Amino acid sequence: MKATLLTIGTEILFGSIVNTNSVFLSRQLNMLGVDVLRHITVGDNRGRLLRALETSFEDCDIVITTGGLGPTEDDLTKETIAEFFGVQLKEDAEQLEILTSWFAAQNRVMAPNNIKQAWLPEGSEVLPNPNGTAPGFYLTDGKRHIYVLPGPPRENKPMFLDYVAPRLSSHEDGYLYYKIVRTIGIGESDLEMKLMDLIDGQTDPTIATYAKTFECSFRVASKRPTLKEAEDAVEECMVKIRKIVGEYIYSEEDRDLLSVVLDIMKKKRLTLASAESITGGMFAKLITDIPGASKVFQRGVVTYSNAAKISELDVSPETLEKYGAISAQTAEEMVRGLSLYSGASVCVSVTGNAGPDADEGKPVGQFFVGLMYDGKVTVREFMARRKTRDDVRSLACTEMTKMVYNIVRSID
Amino acid sequence: MKATLLTIGTEILFGSIVNTNSVFLSRQLNMLGVDVLRHITVGDNRGRLLRALETSFEDCDIVITTGGLGPTEDDLTKETIAEFFGVQLKEDAEQLEILTSWFAAQNRVMAPNNIKQAWLPEGSEVLPNPNGTAPGFYLTDGKRHIYVLPGPPRENKPMFLDYVAPRLSSHEDGYLYYKIVRTIGIGESDLEMKLMDLIDGQTDPTIATYAKTFECSFRVASKRPTLKEAEDAVEECMVKIRKIVGEYIYSEEDRDLLSVVLDIMKKKRLTLASAESITGGMFAKLITDIPGASKVFQRGVVTYSNAAKISELDVSPETLEKYGAISAQTAEEMVRGLSLYSGASVCVSVTGNAGPDADEGKPVGQFFVGLMYDGKVTVREFMARRKTRDDVRSLACTEMTKMVYNIVRSID
Repeated sequence: MKATLLTIGTEILFGSIVNTNSVFLSRQLNMLGVDVLRHITVGDNRGRLLRALETSFEDCDIVITTGGLGPTEDDLTKETIAEFFGVQLKEDAEQLEILTSWFAAQNRVMAPNNIKQAWLPEGSEVLPNPNGTAPGFYLTDGKRHIYVLPGPPRENKPMFLDYVAPRLSSHEDGYLYYKIVRTIGIGESDLEMKLMDLIDGQTDPTIATYAKTFECSFRVASKRPTLKEAEDAVEECMVKIRKIVGEYIYSEEDRDLLSVVLDIMKKKRLTLASAESITGGMFAKLITDIPGASKVFQRGVVTYSNAAKISELDVSPETLEKYGAISAQTAEEMVRGLSLYSGASVCVSVTGNAGPDADEGKPVGQFFVGLMYDGKVTVREFMARRKTRDDVRSLACTEMTKMVYNIVRSID
Repeated sequence: MKATLLTIGTEILFGSIVNTNSVFLSRQLNMLGVDVLRHITVGDNRGRLLRALETSFEDCDIVITTGGLGPTEDDLTKETIAEFFGVQLKEDAEQLEILTSWFAAQNRVMAPNNIKQAWLPEGSEVLPNPNGTAPGFYLTDGKRHIYVLPGPPRENKPMFLDYVAPRLSSHEDGYLYYKIVRTIGIGESDLEMKLMDLIDGQTDPTIATYAKTFECSFRVASKRPTLKEAEDAVEECMVKIRKIVGEYIYSEEDRDLLSVVLDIMKKKRLTLASAESITGGMFAKLITDIPGASKVFQRGVVTYSNAAKISELDVSPETLEKYGAISAQTAEEMVRGLSLYSGASVCVSVTGNAGPDADEGKPVGQFFVGLMYDGKVTVREFMARRKTRDDVRSLACTEMTKMVYNIVRSID
């Protein structure tokens, strides 16, 4: 299966918004074994949309469109796609009913524009949209398949996951089942080396590794006549994989390390506090991105200046004088101070230089993470290879998370 | 002028990276008055690259390509573009010299692959790349213009700004000069209404408004025979604009509000501290994204739990009991506590509900910002219309920034 992602959106051509749907859909499609051959973005323009559909179906059997279904724009998108497939738009009674109830439930008046959202190409199948007014649809002439999705990510993502992915994975040639397994502490080439015999020795399940920014994940996929058989094949393969690289696996459900850490801590009734210098609140922000974080993460401090490190965390002025703010000693005193005043069961601190210039003679990219649990402090030194401010700060947050993960998973 | 942005990059089709270059280039081109008609991304594939060039030049006179110039891929990109224009690649002696010195300066051995990076299409003009090994180039047949840029943003952006933008703005028909003016406290339609007479009354300079997520900016552009004339025309127009909407303008240089705030505070020798609940460190993170923030922002606290609000900020348990953590009263006590213990000249606090569920009976999207300066506290209540966790938290940070801006600009 080969696909083109076609985005219809003037805001993207203006650079007003980032095309996050394409990132999400590309990742999902690749995981499903669909080759994404190109992305195209056009505005609300019939000619360019037709041209894009033409080019796309020259070498793809699947086109997934995103956007252009708002009440003011949907005529163009739907009409043009219908025109391309040589069919008419007609009112879908069930969709009109759903639309009418939707507006009633929101206590909103339905504008005439909105009625058009219940018009769909003849022969298309509705892709329901519980999160908005524009339904998606699937249309095919047997050879060319098009999935038409709304633009807002909170409508686009669930529609893809609930209605498009199952269709793509249950193609006539069998059922696809796959797992995304995430690891830390091992690089992509090491991981490939260790799994080499498994990767080379079999054609189904397949194992493919993916390097992400600071970690490595892999996909184990099987396509069999029934879903049950595919699941069993993947699980059988996972048993072998766990024996070889089990110690590096932190999630078999494609979850973020930070949310895995929060889950473990919630289960073990542990609490977490952070003291940040170089990351300036980024670590706290990442944790509190996750709903329900408050059960584990109760407080954090951002001690950006030396004065704050002294007054908030009892770092001694002598330490700052002798070793500097960017030092293992300061990281240690920060985490000790934090533990004392926060009472959290696990405490983590970080200090370093995110650039743009060397500071206290410490190079850009150098940072120190302190970790305290059960009275014991560990401090580790790191050097970021990529030196932009954002890279260094992101890496620091990742290393903090890894250190917390390694301690909390070992706690009984 | 009409342009297609053509990205060559498999990582983007895998969804491994976000196409930030397209966002940057789209914004820049629109500001320069170039219509961006489409974005296309393809992999390292001759056929698809040729097809994309064909489609693009059907309705555009400009194509800007990004990526595909790494030592392993550049043959394909450069050869295909040369083929499309019907010219040959040949070694550029000056580029080879630059490349050789670059490797010598980095103490690195130049691989044979890299030598290919000094090969350029005949008749092309080099776009220098001081930040990497791949030079860009500009090629035209008089009608079709192609600018070929490297993929890494730290190479792509400066090359565009230093070598592409000046060519686009100094076209044969005159010199373009423009200003991006940013405002707060006024919506796009109000702004348009107020500037209506100016917008309608003249063809040069032109005034165009742009709505961004939480604010509105506009561009004042003039194209004249000389740059000086264009600059003068823009400035003359700005004099009129300032009279009409001057109170809403916070930057005439397209700068972020937060960095404008930091600059004002630096100049006025003010310090800032923050106490965050709902935003969980996001405000501190955004401030410390800016190099040099430490002169103004010395400390922040993230008091996510009630216990932390009580122990860190002296919020009274009775207030939390009676009004709840999400209340004007709590926001006020948080900022008073923060002021007391931090000693910062301006203090800001925030508490609210980012969802996903109602909390203490407070709806998702509700938040309160407290501001304290010179012994006086102001608390404002807000309700986010967009309810995702990230939307609510981002809006809260914006409102905090606006309140700080409004107070600091009035301080003598």
